[in-house]
Amino acid sequence: MLPRLAKVPMIEKLTVALGDRSYPIHIGPGALQDVRFTAVAKGKSVVIITDDHVAPRWLPAVRSALQSSARMVREIILPSGEASKSIEHLSALWDQLLTWQCDRKTLLVALGGGVIGDLVGFAAATYQRGIPFVQVPTTLLAQVDSSVGGKTAINHPKGKNMIGAFYQPIAVFSDTNTLNTLPDREFKSGLAEVIKHGLIIDVQEVATLEQDLPRILAREPAALTRMIVKACTIKADIVAQDEREVGVRAWLNLGHTFGHAIEVGLGYGVWLHGEAVAAGCCVAATLSHLRGDLSVAEVARISTLFAAAGLPTKAPRLGGVPQYMELMAHDKKADAGAIHYVLLKALGKATVSTTDDAHVAQALEAHFA
Amino acid sequence: MLPRLAKVPMIEKLTVALGDRSYPIHIGPGALQDVRFTAVAKGKSVVIITDDHVAPRWLPAVRSALQSSARMVREIILPSGEASKSIEHLSALWDQLLTWQCDRKTLLVALGGGVIGDLVGFAAATYQRGIPFVQVPTTLLAQVDSSVGGKTAINHPKGKNMIGAFYQPIAVFSDTNTLNTLPDREFKSGLAEVIKHGLIIDVQEVATLEQDLPRILAREPAALTRMIVKACTIKADIVAQDEREVGVRAWLNLGHTFGHAIEVGLGYGVWLHGEAVAAGCCVAATLSHLRGDLSVAEVARISTLFAAAGLPTKAPRLGGVPQYMELMAHDKKADAGAIHYVLLKALGKATVSTTDDAHVAQALEAHFA
Repeated sequence: MLPRLAKVPMIEKLTVALGDRSYPIHIGPGALQDVRFTAVAKGKSVVIITDDHVAPRWLPAVRSALQSSARMVREIILPSGEASKSIEHLSALWDQLLTWQCDRKTLLVALGGGVIGDLVGFAAATYQRGIPFVQVPTTLLAQVDSSVGGKTAINHPKGKNMIGAFYQPIAVFSDTNTLNTLPDREFKSGLAEVIKHGLIIDVQEVATLEQDLPRILAREPAALTRMIVKACTIKADIVAQDEREVGVRAWLNLGHTFGHAIEVGLGYGVWLHGEAVAAGCCVAATLSHLRGDLSVAEVARISTLFAAAGLPTKAPRLGGVPQYMELMAHDKKADAGAIHYVLLKALGKATVSTTDDAHVAQALEAHFA
Repeated sequence: MLPRLAKVPMIEKLTVALGDRSYPIHIGPGALQDVRFTAVAKGKSVVIITDDHVAPRWLPAVRSALQSSARMVREIILPSGEASKSIEHLSALWDQLLTWQCDRKTLLVALGGGVIGDLVGFAAATYQRGIPFVQVPTTLLAQVDSSVGGKTAINHPKGKNMIGAFYQPIAVFSDTNTLNTLPDREFKSGLAEVIKHGLIIDVQEVATLEQDLPRILAREPAALTRMIVKACTIKADIVAQDEREVGVRAWLNLGHTFGHAIEVGLGYGVWLHGEAVAAGCCVAATLSHLRGDLSVAEVARISTLFAAAGLPTKAPRLGGVPQYMELMAHDKKADAGAIHYVLLKALGKATVSTTDDAHVAQALEAHFA
């Protein structure tokens, strides 16, 4: 009898369908060793842009994969952290690309988390009116969220992501192996968006996550791959319907209106983005209940799932309800004065609506820690 | 017998066909008094951005037209001139829009020449990942060229238009009355692009321009309107085929490779853009002849038309052929080392090709003043 073959880890592929801006996402353990990754750089002049946190771990592998096919590979290593998403760093990137005489065929490779992806994507969108770029997201948050949908941006002293563009990569490679070294808190922050994706549109995925959570938290490659493929598929479907966020794409902001208020109110970085989104989703669930749309049991089921993933379900009080209202009114999703909330009509069914301020206050009070 | 009615000047409309990014261009005397101009701002928060040269002449009329329909009209007046197409001015624009808490529905109106159009277009492309903008070009060059096709950009110390995006306006209003006060040299500079549009694709238009030139130079509204509509139609057709300049759109760069070398070699602003393009087209015509594609008579016909329009047909010697070759190699249209020239296979038929350096040298020498 022949020995049973070791199961070859599967690299899954899905497509974000955006007409002539469509692109593939390759997901799985070893995606960076895949032949499709080296092929993307074939004959090209490539600039890898990463940060000083990711570089020691992943730059050698990425460099060597691309050097085998590219005409030339150069590298830019930025300081890690949100501060790199600035006008100054963007301007320095432009400057370096011009110094190297990069042209419209130069390929940028964004190797890192959301900060690198957003910054490099915006640099690609604006250098010589747009050059191709590839995303290699190395955090769970980037793999399930920011790498899908073409949102690129930098921050402005007056607000996060205020300057940017919708600009799609030519391909995304999400290697689940890069998650092995991700700190626990960052990993869980990424899970918040995964859960949120299920809540807005796919109740079956919520049930699957509830069941699969132990294997996900243990970072089993097969469980991670399935989960990331599903999260990306959900987001890709929504983005394909509404690339520029004039309609259903707003659903993806479930928990974000409250979440942004938490992030700004505490000062950015005190809570991670996913932590704020988790608490924000719980407030939004309670608000949905107060409007008569979710049962108490459903609200509890949502909180239980976030808690099981190690995420907060309570919000910091800050300056109380008035400060939340003020912070949310400044949010860029505020449209001519009225705040539009993403709410749940049911588990797996989002909606966007203005709502009674008294209900908002009540939902917030119910979640203050 | 009834008195004969004065002929109502016609506002012509054409459409740039780019799928969901299509937009109309309204051309003619009084386009800024047209009901379609006021309608574009209906119920919106509008920011008019112009320069201190255009403002005294046209801001009052534009403001009053928009105030009759907009919810709010604000204004930003920049210094006139190429220096405003800088990272610093762009950054100041972003800052002002954020200070005013402009949101994604705010409408920007670019009132001015190419500098204002390019800068405001890029600000619109990048503010909160893209907000709507309307072009109101007030120079001939902007009306026939930069307002069609969505090229937006700022300059970088290392090169012009190096940072930018392809981003389409929601509408363009080209009022030929704004050309009445345009200095003669600037008006003629605009004619260079009009003639070039004919040369690359429409020999019949070349003949019409030859015949119509006296009425055009006298700035007769009907002649101007016909000419601008035709020039925009030619450019719009090319752009619709190739929005992002990967193919035929490069034809529009006839004369620009040599022209840019002239502009850079002399220092920007010594020659106007159209003047450099005119001389560049004449060099390209001679080069096309040397390759066996144009007759001596056709080359002479081209030079005669540019000369009749009051434009240069000779190029400054600068540091001779070697300096031209070096300047052209730095041009962003240089692709992996080889310079691609836009040439003429025939009058009204452009092509893109690399070519023999000896022919380039010979063509340049033939045109040195």
